[in-house]
Amino acid sequence: MSETAPFAFHRRVQFYETDLMRIVHHSNYLRFYEEARVAWAAERGVIDWKDPQSAAAFAVLGTQVRHLAPCRFGDQLKIEVQVRLNGVRVVFEYKMWNDGVLASEARTEHVNLGPDLRPQRPLPELKACMEKETWKETWLSSL
Amino acid sequence: MSETAPFAFHRRVQFYETDLMRIVHHSNYLRFYEEARVAWAAERGVIDWKDPQSAAAFAVLGTQVRHLAPCRFGDQLKIEVQVRLNGVRVVFEYKMWNDGVLASEARTEHVNLGPDLRPQRPLPELKACMEKETWKETWLSSL
Amino acid sequence: MSETAPFAFHRRVQFYETDLMRIVHHSNYLRFYEEARVAWAAERGVIDWKDPQSAAAFAVLGTQVRHLAPCRFGDQLKIEVQVRLNGVRVVFEYKMWNDGVLASEARTEHVNLGPDLRPQRPLPELKACMEKETWKETWLSSL
Amino acid sequence: MSETAPFAFHRRVQFYETDLMRIVHHSNYLRFYEEARVAWAAERGVIDWKDPQSAAAFAVLGTQVRHLAPCRFGDQLKIEVQVRLNGVRVVFEYKMWNDGVLASEARTEHVNLGPDLRPQRPLPELKACMEKETWKETWLSSL
Repeated sequence: MSETAPFAFHRRVQFYETDLMRIVHHSNYLRFYEEARVAWAAERGVIDWKDPQSAAAFAVLGTQVRHLAPCRFGDQLKIEVQVRLNGVRVVFEYKMWNDGVLASEARTEHVNLGPDLRPQRPLPELKACMEKETWKETWLSSL
Repeated sequence: MSETAPFAFHRRVQFYETDLMRIVHHSNYLRFYEEARVAWAAERGVIDWKDPQSAAAFAVLGTQVRHLAPCRFGDQLKIEVQVRLNGVRVVFEYKMWNDGVLASEARTEHVNLGPDLRPQRPLPELKACMEKETWKETWLSSL
Repeated sequence: MSETAPFAFHRRVQFYETDLMRIVHHSNYLRFYEEARVAWAAERGVIDWKDPQSAAAFAVLGTQVRHLAPCRFGDQLKIEVQVRLNGVRVVFEYKMWNDGVLASEARTEHVNLGPDLRPQRPLPELKACMEKETWKETWLSSL
Repeated sequence: MSETAPFAFHRRVQFYETDLMRIVHHSNYLRFYEEARVAWAAERGVIDWKDPQSAAAFAVLGTQVRHLAPCRFGDQLKIEVQVRLNGVRVVFEYKMWNDGVLASEARTEHVNLGPDLRPQRPLPELKACMEKETWKETWLSSL
């Protein structure tokens, strides 16, 4: 992957993710964004599928989601991701594309939590990986 | 509560529990039945809200659900429960009523799992509580 | 209810809402806030439990959630709500209390969507109801 | 695909699908089985991703799930499917494999519902497709 193309994750909308308005329920966007975040972390080697505790490196401090166009059962979504460190916090930004249409944008903030649920420094491998990540300050248009 | 009236749990259908057919998604029935099971266990004193591990006494071995009539956003559901021991297994049966209509019936089987996820004997307090429970063998009409 | 005390909604954390960190998964906060929003709307008479379409008056444009303290299985949550109109948008703010501790704050924005999923003016009954709502500009401390 | 090898669907366990026992919550199995069922139907051309109503051909009458081994965050699941008609009912059976271990078996029953939620005959294309499906009567070992 080129260093300038954002990481991309693909995912189809399932039947059980819709609601009575026949579109994806808004709470499920946070699940889609989590899937994209975990896929990024696995691809970069900063999460270990076989060690559930490794997910604690990305405990959620806050989320913001903007809904720009609806998603429906069977839609094939593409989620682009960019990441940076901000002190002990890890900041992710996301763009969700649905058949070429920008359906949603989001930002989530995370911190590495110890077993006692107290914030810790980011993992060293995360810091190392960050030096190669590209971040565009005004990448999101709606947040 | 009379010993012959089954334990009853009440619960309203939420918006996020519906799907694009404008009815409750079938997977959510298992969540409603879990709520009823936990409410029963809390009322009988065999689960401790402050000790999450206590829920391991009801690890799920199997489930059966029958759908007889749809449930919709805002419907006020009543779930009746009966329970018995079958060896090391705990068997729950459920009737879900929606405004006087039998909407669903279910049976779930459980076992007490230790921290190593291996089956153990039921908790003594569960065995004691069982002596006072009423069980009707042919209570369910569709399972 | 006094006009100055915010609307409050009470809700216990269910087993199925936890994740492997043994706390409530962050996506479920949007479901809890939806429950509180719908309870407010039902109490004020601006949503009709028997008319699912009436929920379209609160289609979600955007969400922001801040996580301040974890919530666990069995915790009894209290969610306070304030609401105002901002043009065609309806803005909700929420505080989630867990045993006296401020666990989360959130803001959500909504618009009345027609059957074609296009924005419409707020319902007249919503506008009327708003004249009696109290709004404090700096009510949230973390958003 | 050979006519004798069952249809297979692959799917990784997500973080948000686990519960505080650090395993997949039992209600999510019905969602995984739905994903496999829909993937089968799409592959056979009896469901249309662009027509949500087409999913009504598989409205759920009943479900049975057996849990044989736990599934955890990051596990890569393989779900095998077999299907047959039984009068107006469509019967699916499933085996879920987790790294070579049989983790779960299930059976679900479906019927084609009209817009009025009343049962109808199966779609002609479903009947045609069924003539090529292989069914083994004793395929499941635990149900």
